[in-house]
Amino acid sequence: MESDERPGTVLSAAEAWDRLKHCEYGRLAVSVMGEPDIYPLNFVAHDGALFMRTNPGTKLAELTVNERVAFEVDEVNGDEAWSVVLKGTARVIVAQSEVDAADTLPLKPWIPTRKYTYVEITPTYIQGRHFELGDEPERY
Amino acid sequence: MESDERPGTVLSAAEAWDRLKHCEYGRLAVSVMGEPDIYPLNFVAHDGALFMRTNPGTKLAELTVNERVAFEVDEVNGDEAWSVVLKGTARVIVAQSEVDAADTLPLKPWIPTRKYTYVEITPTYIQGRHFELGDEPERY
Repeated sequence: MESDERPGTVLSAAEAWDRLKHCEYGRLAVSVMGEPDIYPLNFVAHDGALFMRTNPGTKLAELTVNERVAFEVDEVNGDEAWSVVLKGTARVIVAQSEVDAADTLPLKPWIPTRKYTYVEITPTYIQGRHFELGDEPERY
Repeated sequence: MESDERPGTVLSAAEAWDRLKHCEYGRLAVSVMGEPDIYPLNFVAHDGALFMRTNPGTKLAELTVNERVAFEVDEVNGDEAWSVVLKGTARVIVAQSEVDAADTLPLKPWIPTRKYTYVEITPTYIQGRHFELGDEPERY
């Protein structure tokens, strides 16, 4: 009954969004000139998109070069684990009306800053998976 | 006294490795044709490199296209957080002597499989940061 590919249980999109909404932080993966980088940061899932804040520094510079990003949250509890991966495009929020709206989100960065920029990630893909971390079959 | 850029406290390389060694799982960021992807998985830090296992599927295919990867671990405890980001190059372990050595590592994947492949990440960069998640200054 064992399959060589048993990639956990796939969550429904609604379940995946529900888990995102209950998380405060995750990891943003970006790629510049083919070199991946990854940042832990706080975020809020709101209105079908992700919102986060960043310094006008490295992360923003990379998003300017390549707007395609991946974002991940996960949790491990004893013998169970789950993760949600969202892929999409990132854009810096510039319009003041959008900045004002973002200011109302419960969003707190890891790095306190006076000057910051909001980034919105519009998803093109989301998938959640649930894993049972039990014993594995014998290798053959 | 507040700076606009207060990127937490940078850990020494030895401290960063020490944290990696005490973690069981993290997230691997890869990039294919400029599209980042991210995978949670178990790993072992051993002999100055990272070892993990993967199915002969997506992840491996992507590593074949672009060997450059980033790997991240983190932990949040109340008002404190830390993360370690390692960048490097990934290669699939092929030689049987190396496979045998990897078989002795305490490495257990999230997805139990009979067929699997070891991947070794040779680091070119490592940085750990510690964050105090206190209140932030007023925005100006």
